[in-house]
Amino acid sequence: MTKPIYVLNGPNLNLLGSREPHIYGTTTLEDVRGLCEARAAALGHQIVFHQSNHEGQLIDWVQEARSGACALVINPAGYGHTSVALLDALKALTIPIIECHLSNPAAREDFRRHTYVSLAATGVVSGFGAHSYELAIEAAAGQAAKTAASA
Amino acid sequence: MTKPIYVLNGPNLNLLGSREPHIYGTTTLEDVRGLCEARAAALGHQIVFHQSNHEGQLIDWVQEARSGACALVINPAGYGHTSVALLDALKALTIPIIECHLSNPAAREDFRRHTYVSLAATGVVSGFGAHSYELAIEAAAGQAAKTAASA
Amino acid sequence: MTKPIYVLNGPNLNLLGSREPHIYGTTTLEDVRGLCEARAAALGHQIVFHQSNHEGQLIDWVQEARSGACALVINPAGYGHTSVALLDALKALTIPIIECHLSNPAAREDFRRHTYVSLAATGVVSGFGAHSYELAIEAAAGQAAKTAASA
Amino acid sequence: MTKPIYVLNGPNLNLLGSREPHIYGTTTLEDVRGLCEARAAALGHQIVFHQSNHEGQLIDWVQEARSGACALVINPAGYGHTSVALLDALKALTIPIIECHLSNPAAREDFRRHTYVSLAATGVVSGFGAHSYELAIEAAAGQAAKTAASA
Amino acid sequence: MTKPIYVLNGPNLNLLGSREPHIYGTTTLEDVRGLCEARAAALGHQIVFHQSNHEGQLIDWVQEARSGACALVINPAGYGHTSVALLDALKALTIPIIECHLSNPAAREDFRRHTYVSLAATGVVSGFGAHSYELAIEAAAGQAAKTAASA
Amino acid sequence: MTKPIYVLNGPNLNLLGSREPHIYGTTTLEDVRGLCEARAAALGHQIVFHQSNHEGQLIDWVQEARSGACALVINPAGYGHTSVALLDALKALTIPIIECHLSNPAAREDFRRHTYVSLAATGVVSGFGAHSYELAIEAAAGQAAKTAASA
Amino acid sequence: MTKPIYVLNGPNLNLLGSREPHIYGTTTLEDVRGLCEARAAALGHQIVFHQSNHEGQLIDWVQEARSGACALVINPAGYGHTSVALLDALKALTIPIIECHLSNPAAREDFRRHTYVSLAATGVVSGFGAHSYELAIEAAAGQAAKTAASA
Amino acid sequence: MTKPIYVLNGPNLNLLGSREPHIYGTTTLEDVRGLCEARAAALGHQIVFHQSNHEGQLIDWVQEARSGACALVINPAGYGHTSVALLDALKALTIPIIECHLSNPAAREDFRRHTYVSLAATGVVSGFGAHSYELAIEAAAGQAAKTAASA
Amino acid sequence: MTKPIYVLNGPNLNLLGSREPHIYGTTTLEDVRGLCEARAAALGHQIVFHQSNHEGQLIDWVQEARSGACALVINPAGYGHTSVALLDALKALTIPIIECHLSNPAAREDFRRHTYVSLAATGVVSGFGAHSYELAIEAAAGQAAKTAASA
Amino acid sequence: MTKPIYVLNGPNLNLLGSREPHIYGTTTLEDVRGLCEARAAALGHQIVFHQSNHEGQLIDWVQEARSGACALVINPAGYGHTSVALLDALKALTIPIIECHLSNPAAREDFRRHTYVSLAATGVVSGFGAHSYELAIEAAAGQAAKTAASA
Amino acid sequence: MTKPIYVLNGPNLNLLGSREPHIYGTTTLEDVRGLCEARAAALGHQIVFHQSNHEGQLIDWVQEARSGACALVINPAGYGHTSVALLDALKALTIPIIECHLSNPAAREDFRRHTYVSLAATGVVSGFGAHSYELAIEAAAGQAAKTAASA
Amino acid sequence: MTKPIYVLNGPNLNLLGSREPHIYGTTTLEDVRGLCEARAAALGHQIVFHQSNHEGQLIDWVQEARSGACALVINPAGYGHTSVALLDALKALTIPIIECHLSNPAAREDFRRHTYVSLAATGVVSGFGAHSYELAIEAAAGQAAKTAASA
Repeated sequence: MTKPIYVLNGPNLNLLGSREPHIYGTTTLEDVRGLCEARAAALGHQIVFHQSNHEGQLIDWVQEARSGACALVINPAGYGHTSVALLDALKALTIPIIECHLSNPAAREDFRRHTYVSLAATGVVSGFGAHSYELAIEAAAGQAAKTAASA
Repeated sequence: MTKPIYVLNGPNLNLLGSREPHIYGTTTLEDVRGLCEARAAALGHQIVFHQSNHEGQLIDWVQEARSGACALVINPAGYGHTSVALLDALKALTIPIIECHLSNPAAREDFRRHTYVSLAATGVVSGFGAHSYELAIEAAAGQAAKTAASA
Repeated sequence: MTKPIYVLNGPNLNLLGSREPHIYGTTTLEDVRGLCEARAAALGHQIVFHQSNHEGQLIDWVQEARSGACALVINPAGYGHTSVALLDALKALTIPIIECHLSNPAAREDFRRHTYVSLAATGVVSGFGAHSYELAIEAAAGQAAKTAASA
Repeated sequence: MTKPIYVLNGPNLNLLGSREPHIYGTTTLEDVRGLCEARAAALGHQIVFHQSNHEGQLIDWVQEARSGACALVINPAGYGHTSVALLDALKALTIPIIECHLSNPAAREDFRRHTYVSLAATGVVSGFGAHSYELAIEAAAGQAAKTAASA
Repeated sequence: MTKPIYVLNGPNLNLLGSREPHIYGTTTLEDVRGLCEARAAALGHQIVFHQSNHEGQLIDWVQEARSGACALVINPAGYGHTSVALLDALKALTIPIIECHLSNPAAREDFRRHTYVSLAATGVVSGFGAHSYELAIEAAAGQAAKTAASA
Repeated sequence: MTKPIYVLNGPNLNLLGSREPHIYGTTTLEDVRGLCEARAAALGHQIVFHQSNHEGQLIDWVQEARSGACALVINPAGYGHTSVALLDALKALTIPIIECHLSNPAAREDFRRHTYVSLAATGVVSGFGAHSYELAIEAAAGQAAKTAASA
Repeated sequence: MTKPIYVLNGPNLNLLGSREPHIYGTTTLEDVRGLCEARAAALGHQIVFHQSNHEGQLIDWVQEARSGACALVINPAGYGHTSVALLDALKALTIPIIECHLSNPAAREDFRRHTYVSLAATGVVSGFGAHSYELAIEAAAGQAAKTAASA
Repeated sequence: MTKPIYVLNGPNLNLLGSREPHIYGTTTLEDVRGLCEARAAALGHQIVFHQSNHEGQLIDWVQEARSGACALVINPAGYGHTSVALLDALKALTIPIIECHLSNPAAREDFRRHTYVSLAATGVVSGFGAHSYELAIEAAAGQAAKTAASA
Repeated sequence: MTKPIYVLNGPNLNLLGSREPHIYGTTTLEDVRGLCEARAAALGHQIVFHQSNHEGQLIDWVQEARSGACALVINPAGYGHTSVALLDALKALTIPIIECHLSNPAAREDFRRHTYVSLAATGVVSGFGAHSYELAIEAAAGQAAKTAASA
Repeated sequence: MTKPIYVLNGPNLNLLGSREPHIYGTTTLEDVRGLCEARAAALGHQIVFHQSNHEGQLIDWVQEARSGACALVINPAGYGHTSVALLDALKALTIPIIECHLSNPAAREDFRRHTYVSLAATGVVSGFGAHSYELAIEAAAGQAAKTAASA
Repeated sequence: MTKPIYVLNGPNLNLLGSREPHIYGTTTLEDVRGLCEARAAALGHQIVFHQSNHEGQLIDWVQEARSGACALVINPAGYGHTSVALLDALKALTIPIIECHLSNPAAREDFRRHTYVSLAATGVVSGFGAHSYELAIEAAAGQAAKTAASA
Repeated sequence: MTKPIYVLNGPNLNLLGSREPHIYGTTTLEDVRGLCEARAAALGHQIVFHQSNHEGQLIDWVQEARSGACALVINPAGYGHTSVALLDALKALTIPIIECHLSNPAAREDFRRHTYVSLAATGVVSGFGAHSYELAIEAAAGQAAKTAASA
């Protein structure tokens, strides 16, 4: 299992750490990348880490993960709630998909309760801030191992 | 009537033939282009054939078709269900618009039952795999001729 | 493959050509039958063509098509939106079913957006006036050939 | 109590036994009639057994049962979900009405969850295949006896 | 203006007078016909009066009224709430259409609040028992005169 | 039976005849009063005729009708769709209540489909312009006679 | 087949016979047990009969029936409409499940129209008072025999 | 206060003036820019004016406005109704946000009634054609001054 | 253009400035009148300025504006969400109608999202406190000029 | 604490005692005033007691209570379900608000389940006939004391 | 009338006084019991006071109250919103039922707006903290006296 | 930090490993307890591990965790979707709450999409089978540390 774990980040996550730090803390997306790399390394994995505000770019990366990744961690941010196109891209994957959120969407506005992404996801980790990503990396590694074993 | 028929393909259709071939068959989007060209040629038409995963790119092409096409065939894929922006672009066209789907959306999830595109479409062809495109090309040619005659 | 294609027409389609000709044109249902016969003949097929205002009669014909037809084209008109009984009759068929409409239901009242028939249909052609029927005949012939090939 | 029990069967039930026998079994509607007759005879009753694909015909028979039957067993099939007219006919009865289904509608599509018929029915038996009819006959006999006793 | 006023009656209205007379009274449908004839005659009109439990039969009569009547009075009973096919037949008429009910549907079950028929009707008279028909005849005559005047 | 028939008119009906005469005609509310008086007189009745833009005023008049009228004709206009208070006032009446509309609400916006008034009304006459009022007066007289007879 | 049929009764059924006897009759739950035992014995079966007002207790008994019963008859009463936990317990069974009601829920409040239990049930018997249980026992015996035969 | 007012325009607004000029007039987006510049200049402000059909591009510009603008005027066009991602970008702003529309969305299709943008907007100006932009510029200037004063 | 602009204020706006001044500020309705007069004067207009808690009174003033005003600015407050009668009064106007709110309704309770008034309004200005009125006056003047020009 | 408790009564409550006395009893609104005065006196309070059928009048009184009352008891009757304007008036109060109903709205029609008034109320007393008012007076006195204590 | 008033408390009310005392105050459930006893004693009544987190236990107590209580006061807490079983138990009572809440549910989450309990309750007291219980005791005593008088 | 982490399991989880092992695997709840203990120990924590089919028992344990636990992991199973009482118990906690599911609810029936529990949860881990529990333990430990640090 030498393929990397893809970690994709949706719109506005590039603002992490600079937007309302009293609420979201001062952890930046660069910091999150570091946490993911460390946890992945500890589990014998590498990561590919991307962020974009463009739905089409995210879809391109998901398609790239079809042959290039052993598992996919995705924090779709706003596109999770609205993008059937992203869902369709994810449905074309055969590797594990881990949906990941910084906060717990159930405690927010009604339109954040549902994500199309979760219809294609193996599982979800949400609500633990940057720690959500670390747990998602571990879940991805575990699921990838299980997938490899059953292949 | 020497303007071409535009054939636009939405997100993830670039994967055609490689995604779940036991379900969707092994026909690729290149094959679909060939079928469209052949049917158009038989009817005295040329085609312009595009695919993109980017909503904005699809809108750009739709706008381009305003002056550059005699008719538009569009398989909006996932954007058909969610994009008011694409609908608005289509509403600015005065040429015939043929909505086209490989499968029959009525037999799938609830959120695939409705497309904004159909609110602007002259008509719809769906459910016949790649053959849907050929019928759509014929419909486009027929509607374009009718439009020309009434102009 | 010598069985005919059934073409069934629902309520009020007998008025075609005489009802609001400035909207629906002057093509009569007899004209539609002629177009269907011609397209079918060009594809090596015969048709059986019926119209009724009676739901039960349409169901009887659908049941008859189980053993008597290679494919079914149906314009259910008003019964498409309301008849679970017609849906059940169609579900008992193993031949291809092509739903066909003169106009695009998506551009009409809300209660015309959904048809039970589409839950059983292989595919749909709508919006091209009498031309919808010709395309539906071709789709029926194509699907029947594919069904025969896979049998 | 010499009036017979009416047993009415709605659309497509004439296909019983020939439609998807691996699912619905090979019991035909003629077999069901036999089972009903036997159970009724064992309870000292006779039956009148009908099937039609025509809503109006079913309503005619329901009206006939007003003076001609001691109880009514009805499997309305598709019309159960859509026919207010059938409901109104049933509401004009003063004899017991037993709604009967081969399968359990709750385990099927959403639009099969509700029947208008159940708004007028004394009770319902569903889900036991042809056995549902036998239990319905016994229920009808029991309710008819109770009705007679209280009259 | 020598064409008659059509008066069409939907399912179960043949039971009028015999069904729950303590609620609906003892007036029969024959009595209603007499009241309609008398009111029509007083206004210089003749009537054609029909009842059927069959949706298709009602549609046939509505189509017949296109050329054979100066106005249409219809009590659609149960089909009013469910029949798009009947609505479509009515929409093909250019003569006045008067929807008529014995009781006030607003005071009954939720599914009786809406009729498709009212989407095509010129106007509605409901709630006055057999008197509703007499007022509907007068409304029909009045509207027919107005239509003739503006033709 | 010497008490008058109350005829109450809701908001904006004072504009009748001056608002969009190409649609609503040139009949004024004064003309409507005249038609009502004439029809009532022909049936041996007198009328009390009011209009107000004030919901509370209409409720006051409805309460006044409890002891002062033999029947009530009301065109609630906009308050019909929104006023539970008016409904409650009407429910306190024991005389017949006739709801009356110039046009057919079913053919207008969704929020005009339902009136609270109809929950308390004996019956409804709608869609015949000023003629609706004349028929409503006759209905009122008829219902009042029936009420008197059964009292 | 020597395992008994479990008959489980939900909340408030212990009041049977003492609550509104003019409506529900004077049959007590003890009487129902007797009827069930008699019918079961006639079919060569024994029963285990329980009632509880506690949701958790009912789930415990359902779990017990996994290995201890050949079939399950359950009148879930109020918990049928609200308990996903009970549904999950039933879904873990491989024996036939018969849902049983004294009255016909379709004729009651809206929130009684749907039961989660019916999503797991083989079939339903409702509306015949204590007789519903006898028919349910027969259905259970019949289904158990069929299950045994196919095992 | 020397930072400019950002004026962002969503999909298809580049067609302004060329699309259905009999409805939308012949004012082009370039003209709108001119009007905005003039009004801003009169109030002592400069503007940055953008249009894109790409959702991601609009989000990039909104993020840019965080540090580069004193206020934001946005006509989100089709993306206003569907983009949670755009909403999230706007929520990260601390400057005033003015939503602006050429026409009044309330008078259009249901799906245009609601915009996610308005959940983050300080206020809205809609319905006055190009004049909406001028008023929005004035509102932006006013709100920016108020924000500066309270900072 | 010598007719004044009507500025109508709905229920509770008389409390402006005295109700929760820390939220709504200390601007009173008298102050708002002053701002409106000043802006109108600068544009060559006069205003008529009213407030009432009575729905009927507001309707009376709207009717008065039919012949007495060149444009109407209305802050309907609570009646905007509930009054079909007010909508109907506004629909009888042929002058421009500007809906105006102090705060942005989209950021408040669900039942404040929709106003009937907006169905008749030319445009809307909301969210800028008393400044909303000034912009509404300018919009009214602009629309009145345009209306006059096209008359 | 010398300010009185306001007791406001909405539309049709003036009919109390004369409307359906077999249901509502013979207690008149004058009697209710007496009960309120007695209970208030026993608690050391005075009352101001009003009734109106006019929504605007009720709003005027609520505004008056801002400075003139120590607490407000309101039975909004029909306006409770429909009046956002009344809600807004109540929201401007800082004194306790007690909603009071003679009957239990939960046991009535669906549209009586919700009142806007309850969104602003401190608490609710309903279902005990005239006794509801007495308990509401006590609740008002208690809440007023608590408010005074915390002020 | 020597039977006690039952006062039943649902889940989590045992935490009263220790949970968020800055919101709910420091009154404990023991304190509430004391208040209830005192008010009951003053009215010549005794109470039986219970609390449980178990739905089944609450149902058992409600059943016990059928013969053991003159009235029932119940604060169902969370079970009020979800328990049909509890509703059914309450419906079997013939004594007065008073629903009681510490806070006003209308001011909380949507799923707290409706309680099944209120469908069976004589009346409701909510929003006055522990004082709600005292008023509920008085209401219970009053209703019990009225029930006794009419028995 | 010496208080244990509570791990609570809802109804039917005692069947884990014995129910449909081809789907849920052969891991038993005892195995899950072992995994939780191991992960907790590795992080310096102890656990208290419970399962019950009784809603009230689960609430009792949640209340116990108020003073006895540093964090709570809960797999509410069926009660998660229906229990407001459980939600209220959780809301009384001030320690972190981790919702945990074996499978991803988004991929199951509609009524499993929403849990009340998630309204009170700090975060959620779902979809990874028994591994979900291990990740939940780590999340609990992390959140507990963060809570302790900020205390």
